[in-house]
Amino acid sequence: MKGSAFELREDLLDPSSGKHYEGAFTQGNSYLQLRGSFEEGLACAPQNEKYWRLPANVTLEKQRSPRSKCGTYVPGIMGSHPLLNEEVVNLPNPLIFRVSCSLEALDMDLCEIKDYSRVLNLRNGVLARRFIWKTNSGAALECSYERFASRARKNLIVQKMTYKCIEGKAELRFLNDIDENVTTNGYSHFASNQKTPCDNGALVTVETDKKEKVWLETRAFGERLRFSEGTANISLAPGEEITVIKISGIMTSRDTDALLGPEQLSHLIKEAGSDYAALKAENDLAWEKLWENSGVEIEGDEEAQLALNFSVYHLLRGACENDDRVAICAKGFAGEAYFGHFFWDTEVYLLPFFLYTNPRVAKNLVSFRVNTLKGAMENARRYGCRGARYPWESSVSGTEQCPNWQYADHEIHITADVVYGLWHYYEATGDFEFIAKAAPVFVETARYWFDRVEFRSDGEVHLNGVMGPDEYTCLSSDNAYTNAMVRHSLEKTLELLSLLKERKPDSIKDLNIDEAFRSKALEIIQKIPVPVTSDGVIIQCREFAQMEDPRFDLTWPDRSKCFGTQVPQEKLYRVKALKQADALMLPFLFPKNYSAEEVKKNLAYYLPYTTHDSSLSYIIHAILLARCQKAEEGFELMRKALKIDLSDYHGGASEGIHIANCGGIWQAVVLGFAGFTPGEEKPVFHPNLPRNWNALRFHIVYRGQKYQVEITPSSVNVTPND
Amino acid sequence: MKGSAFELREDLLDPSSGKHYEGAFTQGNSYLQLRGSFEEGLACAPQNEKYWRLPANVTLEKQRSPRSKCGTYVPGIMGSHPLLNEEVVNLPNPLIFRVSCSLEALDMDLCEIKDYSRVLNLRNGVLARRFIWKTNSGAALECSYERFASRARKNLIVQKMTYKCIEGKAELRFLNDIDENVTTNGYSHFASNQKTPCDNGALVTVETDKKEKVWLETRAFGERLRFSEGTANISLAPGEEITVIKISGIMTSRDTDALLGPEQLSHLIKEAGSDYAALKAENDLAWEKLWENSGVEIEGDEEAQLALNFSVYHLLRGACENDDRVAICAKGFAGEAYFGHFFWDTEVYLLPFFLYTNPRVAKNLVSFRVNTLKGAMENARRYGCRGARYPWESSVSGTEQCPNWQYADHEIHITADVVYGLWHYYEATGDFEFIAKAAPVFVETARYWFDRVEFRSDGEVHLNGVMGPDEYTCLSSDNAYTNAMVRHSLEKTLELLSLLKERKPDSIKDLNIDEAFRSKALEIIQKIPVPVTSDGVIIQCREFAQMEDPRFDLTWPDRSKCFGTQVPQEKLYRVKALKQADALMLPFLFPKNYSAEEVKKNLAYYLPYTTHDSSLSYIIHAILLARCQKAEEGFELMRKALKIDLSDYHGGASEGIHIANCGGIWQAVVLGFAGFTPGEEKPVFHPNLPRNWNALRFHIVYRGQKYQVEITPSSVNVTPND
Repeated sequence: MKGSAFELREDLLDPSSGKHYEGAFTQGNSYLQLRGSFEEGLACAPQNEKYWRLPANVTLEKQRSPRSKCGTYVPGIMGSHPLLNEEVVNLPNPLIFRVSCSLEALDMDLCEIKDYSRVLNLRNGVLARRFIWKTNSGAALECSYERFASRARKNLIVQKMTYKCIEGKAELRFLNDIDENVTTNGYSHFASNQKTPCDNGALVTVETDKKEKVWLETRAFGERLRFSEGTANISLAPGEEITVIKISGIMTSRDTDALLGPEQLSHLIKEAGSDYAALKAENDLAWEKLWENSGVEIEGDEEAQLALNFSVYHLLRGACENDDRVAICAKGFAGEAYFGHFFWDTEVYLLPFFLYTNPRVAKNLVSFRVNTLKGAMENARRYGCRGARYPWESSVSGTEQCPNWQYADHEIHITADVVYGLWHYYEATGDFEFIAKAAPVFVETARYWFDRVEFRSDGEVHLNGVMGPDEYTCLSSDNAYTNAMVRHSLEKTLELLSLLKERKPDSIKDLNIDEAFRSKALEIIQKIPVPVTSDGVIIQCREFAQMEDPRFDLTWPDRSKCFGTQVPQEKLYRVKALKQADALMLPFLFPKNYSAEEVKKNLAYYLPYTTHDSSLSYIIHAILLARCQKAEEGFELMRKALKIDLSDYHGGASEGIHIANCGGIWQAVVLGFAGFTPGEEKPVFHPNLPRNWNALRFHIVYRGQKYQVEITPSSVNVTPND
Repeated sequence: MKGSAFELREDLLDPSSGKHYEGAFTQGNSYLQLRGSFEEGLACAPQNEKYWRLPANVTLEKQRSPRSKCGTYVPGIMGSHPLLNEEVVNLPNPLIFRVSCSLEALDMDLCEIKDYSRVLNLRNGVLARRFIWKTNSGAALECSYERFASRARKNLIVQKMTYKCIEGKAELRFLNDIDENVTTNGYSHFASNQKTPCDNGALVTVETDKKEKVWLETRAFGERLRFSEGTANISLAPGEEITVIKISGIMTSRDTDALLGPEQLSHLIKEAGSDYAALKAENDLAWEKLWENSGVEIEGDEEAQLALNFSVYHLLRGACENDDRVAICAKGFAGEAYFGHFFWDTEVYLLPFFLYTNPRVAKNLVSFRVNTLKGAMENARRYGCRGARYPWESSVSGTEQCPNWQYADHEIHITADVVYGLWHYYEATGDFEFIAKAAPVFVETARYWFDRVEFRSDGEVHLNGVMGPDEYTCLSSDNAYTNAMVRHSLEKTLELLSLLKERKPDSIKDLNIDEAFRSKALEIIQKIPVPVTSDGVIIQCREFAQMEDPRFDLTWPDRSKCFGTQVPQEKLYRVKALKQADALMLPFLFPKNYSAEEVKKNLAYYLPYTTHDSSLSYIIHAILLARCQKAEEGFELMRKALKIDLSDYHGGASEGIHIANCGGIWQAVVLGFAGFTPGEEKPVFHPNLPRNWNALRFHIVYRGQKYQVEITPSSVNVTPND
């Protein structure tokens, strides 16, 4: 990875890494998201392929043919898949611009291409492609492409294509198009699909199988070009060049704009004009403002700097700034894996970045859970319980969408994680109005726990048949993480009720709280076990001690591959092999409850059993190591996290961005190595920098105040800022 | 259920029980199997419906629209389904014979039908339907249908239709046809599909997606009828009648006959002629011989007699007499549920009936496992183990076909059950040549256990992460049943090796047995735990004591429905609710190892937790109760088993016959109430008859000798017979 820390580069045209770069180059403006596919498509990679993607462990499943999958997403536009449940729909691809020279269609696989490069500018989200096309007709063309999803005009995508004839005579033919024959995970979600060519482009209207309408329009402009039904011809002599500007737009029936529909979309496109430089300038300005609050400078480590910039870029792109009916999906809307579902990532991995850089977006993320409470209550009913049970995999409705029962049924910690997120937002912002509005989530999830825990006749309280964060232990009881999160959740529920009683007593009535509610909550708080061995090691679950030794020396010969791909699932389920941090999530989320010594003991016990097969794993351990003065060891693990989306070794970003890891990388820098410790009146830092980091500079927002922070190996400077 | 004990009657034309009777009326001759659908089909029940049947708990899943599903199966003709794996293919339906009167098509739903009845004669497998059809044209017709799958000519199906005009003038039109547009579980398995009408019928050739060819031909004959392209017309005046004989045949590329193909099939049909009475007579004779060995007379209990006859009929129909490459599928080839897969039912529920009435068929069943050893070895490899691991759900190959991982991965007791079955065959027949041939199964399954059990560094041996017969405990360790079966399996392996050493020393070499093999087997035999509480209760598994009380009083208000449909699966997995006998399988399979007192204690402990949601449950408990002198209590449970396929309350036989329960009913009578106790030189009986049974009369074959048995409340008469 060469170039500046704001440039993500691809210098080799390699079909085997095509899908990886498509994912890594995903562009977006928080409303719409576009994978980095080529404008002209690839003849050998039809986008309407139909097949059955079966529910599977996405971490371990073999990825499909790697050549190319376009991606056009508007978060919230979901389709109904018979096996995968609600999935985000891959919309018609508006980027399409096809070129041929004397009947030879440009195709990056089939044509003779030289001096190829692509660069994604992480500062402004502009993707540029440059190459020389030596055509069969003898002409050679210098081709330059640029495109961006406008951060200033959310519905619009702006593209610029320049073709310069550098040899021979080029007879070019252009087709400005939208590809409406697009399947998602091999399935067509379009109940209807209509395309109308117009003079310089096309209009497409689709209706999804969940009855959402999506309108797309594209228009091309070029001096000397006369388009008809989307096509135009031009002849270039050596030295001559032609530039085409393509403006496309997307609008959906789910949008909340005052005016919706194809006419309004046309109006927006007309209004934008075709001045590329002007459109780019307003885009750049909007991005610049985002970076101002969100950027982190790591002096002395270009590799970490690029990976962090990459992470922040995708977080800024992927978060929905103006929509609290969706969250950020597990692949950051950059691919089809995990089907556009929302996981605990939202609360545990993504929220802190927004909370401490852009609380307005953080508010959207937590509001999403308040807005899906009704679904979570229906979900509890489906599981035979009262109250609210948040789904392991959420869509826009709040009911369970996870296609694998072992996760859907058993990873119930999500319900407590949601409350943790809400409280975290409240602690970081002091936004009382919000937390008062969120009170029903606290109360209804508490009611779910009342029905879900076991009150034994001997007075003990247990929580049986759960899956903790370590998904390689399928069914366990008294999982320490889950139990502690339930306890925290109920503690905060009682705390919130006291707060409301004091500050907003009227709001209490609607919650129907009686004495039995308080006493049940207290009983669970007091009795739910989070046991620790005499050596101070948190016991992951009741069954853990009796599980088999994984004998990694024999069972995991090839460490370059996930452990989970080396042994059958049934073995994963009976050995002490952790997919990711489980008990260790507790010191990560509750740093004040565990001394450095305790953290070290737990790391020493669990790390040898931990496979890091999950992309959520490295970063947690890195942070814990940093916090207990083992910055170098932590940094070694963090380096692995940095590569997850930047190297295509394990598929990289092929199926989308590991967006939780992006949030985790920011957390590792700010909450790990910089040692930011929220909870006091002012932001407090206990840094432990890796050896080669000379300085860290960033902004955070804490309880309504923005701070400028500079940390060096010998100093911490925190300055209020506005 | 009226009529004689050999007549299964349907007297009411009720669409809601249509599929139940289709299943219950399934006819077959051990080579081909036909569900009891109407010859003319039903307009509202298209047989080519496409949908996705998802992998699910078949016991608990909601059944599809109940109106009608035809079924034509040749065991072994499997298709490849993307979600359900290999499934038995529902072949083109050769029974089709359509009738119209003055353009009104006969349809049991849409026409005016009176005096309807259907009777399946369990003695000879002939299904008869009678009714009066009052047509729109004013004519009334007395219609009689009869059909059977010829027991004397395995490829052939014989049908007779008689229409008598009893009112008005009937202008009839017939179409003799084969319906080739048939899907299996909503999926089409036909890669190619060709139909050629001929003068009096049609020829169909299909190729399945597993490249098996299936040829079907049908021909109709009737005096005064001239067929052309399968159709014929006739006009009937009042009092006139017309009889049509339809002869159809099926042949497949999998058959082992010397000559195969459409010409050979045509030849067989021609050879059969069209003399219905003659064809029926040879069929009846063949059935009579089967009943002679297999019938059991229960004097004094017509209800039990009918259910037992029904069971024996389906066992005789469903078992493949001349094919040791298949076993009997879970639905007895009478429906699409369980996809034609073979389970532990073969060894534990079905084998004893054949073993003690028709050892030749029993030999086929056990040979099936020897023949699929190669697949079982591949299966072990897939699970990362050496040796042979029999699949929980087998198809013809021996690799795992179960579409639900929790069963496929964890119900590994099947591998020990297979060995139990082989040894049981050997004990009952003394067939040394067979058991010598089966030795690799013993040795390779032992090698699988060597890799699968945990040898702990402290010297203990455990078997972790398994599912016992009780499928409501998902993942458990040291399941008593599984551990005891593994121990038995290894004991018999060592016993067989000694036997071979003595009687066939040459055969030992090929097995590659070394001292380590013997010592590992001995170590497991000695150390694998099958713990019992101080009260003498077998401990189902390590986790059982800690599981939650199911509180059936609160959680199972409606006892008319399965418990499993009342609570979510995740609750099933954490409470002490048993789907079926688990620990209690041990006294069932090893009666000599448990005293009546011990059995009583275990029944007293486990019965209150047992839901009997599985059709495999009642019968085991009935037998155990009978064996410990609680015949009346046992009979109460057996009565529930008798109704499983005879009442359509829980769907009855809609999706096929609960063939394991059929085998269980025979076992309950002979091994339970009659108290047959194999293991001695001669058959020994310790009867405990229910109060109203005056006598039991039956034959058994034991160690090569046939015996006639008569048991009354006061006497046991066992007479050698030939």
